[in-house]
Amino acid sequence: MQADILIENGWILTMDPENTVFEKGSLAISGESILAVGKAEDLSHIEAREKVDARGGVILPGFVNVHTHASMTLFRGLADDLPLMRWLEDHIFPAEARLTPELVRLGAELACLEMMASGTTTFCDMYLFENAVAEAADTAGMRAVVGEVLYDFPSPCYGPIEKGFLHVEEMIGRWKYHPRITIALKPHSPYLCAPELLSRAFDMAETHNLPFVIHLAETAAETETIKKTYGKSPVAHLADLGLLSQRTLAAHCVKMDEADIELFAMKGSSVAHNPQSNMKLASGIAPVPAFLKAGITVGIGTDGAASNNDLNMLSEMRSAALIHKVTSADPTLMDAGTILRMATIDGAKCLGLDEITGSLEEGKQADIILMDTDKPHMTPLYNPFSQVVYAAGRNDIRDVFVAGKGIYRNRCHTTLDADAICRRVREAVLTFR
Amino acid sequence: MQADILIENGWILTMDPENTVFEKGSLAISGESILAVGKAEDLSHIEAREKVDARGGVILPGFVNVHTHASMTLFRGLADDLPLMRWLEDHIFPAEARLTPELVRLGAELACLEMMASGTTTFCDMYLFENAVAEAADTAGMRAVVGEVLYDFPSPCYGPIEKGFLHVEEMIGRWKYHPRITIALKPHSPYLCAPELLSRAFDMAETHNLPFVIHLAETAAETETIKKTYGKSPVAHLADLGLLSQRTLAAHCVKMDEADIELFAMKGSSVAHNPQSNMKLASGIAPVPAFLKAGITVGIGTDGAASNNDLNMLSEMRSAALIHKVTSADPTLMDAGTILRMATIDGAKCLGLDEITGSLEEGKQADIILMDTDKPHMTPLYNPFSQVVYAAGRNDIRDVFVAGKGIYRNRCHTTLDADAICRRVREAVLTFR
Repeated sequence: MQADILIENGWILTMDPENTVFEKGSLAISGESILAVGKAEDLSHIEAREKVDARGGVILPGFVNVHTHASMTLFRGLADDLPLMRWLEDHIFPAEARLTPELVRLGAELACLEMMASGTTTFCDMYLFENAVAEAADTAGMRAVVGEVLYDFPSPCYGPIEKGFLHVEEMIGRWKYHPRITIALKPHSPYLCAPELLSRAFDMAETHNLPFVIHLAETAAETETIKKTYGKSPVAHLADLGLLSQRTLAAHCVKMDEADIELFAMKGSSVAHNPQSNMKLASGIAPVPAFLKAGITVGIGTDGAASNNDLNMLSEMRSAALIHKVTSADPTLMDAGTILRMATIDGAKCLGLDEITGSLEEGKQADIILMDTDKPHMTPLYNPFSQVVYAAGRNDIRDVFVAGKGIYRNRCHTTLDADAICRRVREAVLTFR
Repeated sequence: MQADILIENGWILTMDPENTVFEKGSLAISGESILAVGKAEDLSHIEAREKVDARGGVILPGFVNVHTHASMTLFRGLADDLPLMRWLEDHIFPAEARLTPELVRLGAELACLEMMASGTTTFCDMYLFENAVAEAADTAGMRAVVGEVLYDFPSPCYGPIEKGFLHVEEMIGRWKYHPRITIALKPHSPYLCAPELLSRAFDMAETHNLPFVIHLAETAAETETIKKTYGKSPVAHLADLGLLSQRTLAAHCVKMDEADIELFAMKGSSVAHNPQSNMKLASGIAPVPAFLKAGITVGIGTDGAASNNDLNMLSEMRSAALIHKVTSADPTLMDAGTILRMATIDGAKCLGLDEITGSLEEGKQADIILMDTDKPHMTPLYNPFSQVVYAAGRNDIRDVFVAGKGIYRNRCHTTLDADAICRRVREAVLTFR
């Protein structure tokens, strides 16, 4: 049996339905896909053009970042520790008003560099000029679910909303047959989108069988606004419009009560949990343990770098693990295994990509990361799940493969020129300061 | 003017009382001390044997980790996500029962490797066989405040408590003239130490003018126990024994009410805040914003690697910044500048070392770290404080100096053999698994 790449000599965390772990495992890649995965001895008959020695490290599916605004890396640290409205109105909105497709592309390339180097292979992005983000992800070799943000007021990208729907139609056509880019419908939120806009976006998602992604119940202010306007919670509002379904992925979901959770679970909608952004902006803490108990699929997202300030899924996982233990006064909640599923296979499920990525199983796309475990902070190694969630840092990521291609090898980018992009970003943002 | 080392071309965050920042600064080291720090042009007359180019990165005081159990790196990830008592009684205590001075030394060396590589130059440690920790810190070239843990029951190190005090006397004599090692009195906690033990330890601290360090008000269970036994809160109990003073540093302080905070502030005692450990063990969230408002000095600590699971002050700073914003519903609290002071000069103040370390000022010890800012996740750079707290990772630390000596240069350890120590740890812990 012939493979292109054989990864050997590592702990393989498959994240398959049985959570199978191979302590001394091998994984064979053929073309874009996983040819085989298992114990070293069970794959010994496989010949490969290239062998990769994991050196006793950890081999796992690439992380799925279910909520980003990639190009906001341009605003990383532009303004921090401010009240929400001052942050938005005095700093973020004026900076965003200057964005062009070229700047969005540049910011997205910077984001891709950072995400690849910290083990993310798939991301779900919402922003302006989103074609530019898709182009960046394409060039980077990453997998992405992208959607132009839609709202009631005119957009710098497409102008009035009527043109927005045309723009999205064009995007869908343009990327339809791309193996790694999926278009999604992305109305901003119930408070920036009228019911007509939301319904039309959802219909378009249904027509083209695409994800429907929205910010939902992020802050107390939003919940109050929606209650005042529609007489119900943001979740009930969406439900009554018929917009909660299995294709619905809602980001934040901080302010959800029992009835909201029940509705969500019943409809099979999923949640993008962004703990660091919710903490930094003091929005609140999403009731994730209750979501999981209700059977809701929850993925992990970093949100944009302006409110985080990085796109590091390892750090985000740790925040997700820690915050719910302390707020629930229960150290057994959100254990490392659960967290790692959220960051991989459950994230893929949120995006409708779980047949394709999120676990290491025969026939799935080869979206794989290798982590070294030889550094002092990763020593000793009793339990690889706990080591990844509670001790690892981005620099432990050594290799990243997407669809069988090594897009980050031995801690070097193979698809984008990191130094040149960083230099161009530094020049480009001089005027934002 | 002649210096040994001249560090050039970086943002210098001095952390001095005026929080002076030099955007293109230079810093000269002569012997163990800082000879001069300022704008590049103001130091241009200084000749140096060695020049270090900071390449536009950040130059700041080394971090002060005010609460560690260094050798617990041996138990990193041994048992996680468990109820507190099961974690302690089924996993940690049995493992600790097997400790020897040699194992403690090995674990402390592993901890020093990890701490140096993440920018920590000073740590405050409490454990068994603490002479071995002092030896490890000495060899590593780090600065440390160490103390043998004292409690009512016999210790594997010294036997009955009577011998414990003799042991501490010997430690004080042994390390008295060491330039980087300070001994402290470290009774474990009010629930494991009778009032007589506490008072005697405090008297010894007074006699020798040493810090008095104790775990305090960590959990609700502790508070209840103390209230039941002594009819008052743990803080009031210590206050009534006369043990709250400027030399008193209390770790955790999760369960402190307004009266406790007032007492603490009045006595000038300080707090070691350990947010990740408190979250992971679900102990609670210390009321740090109230401490700061009351004028209490607060440092940041990682606690031991069994409840964290790393000793990374960067990650700990970020947790400290994020957790209090969200629990207070105020994103302006615990801004990056405040957090960085807690991790440097305020930490030094907690240990009585603020005349010596914690800021970059002429005449102070040259305890300095250099961070690179050239990686994608550190780009762009608008505000170095926010970049350090919200975006940096341990691998951004490039150089670490303690007392003018480069103990970590170009990401390589110069004082300890990292590979050999990691290998020895892996062998040593085989029986714990």
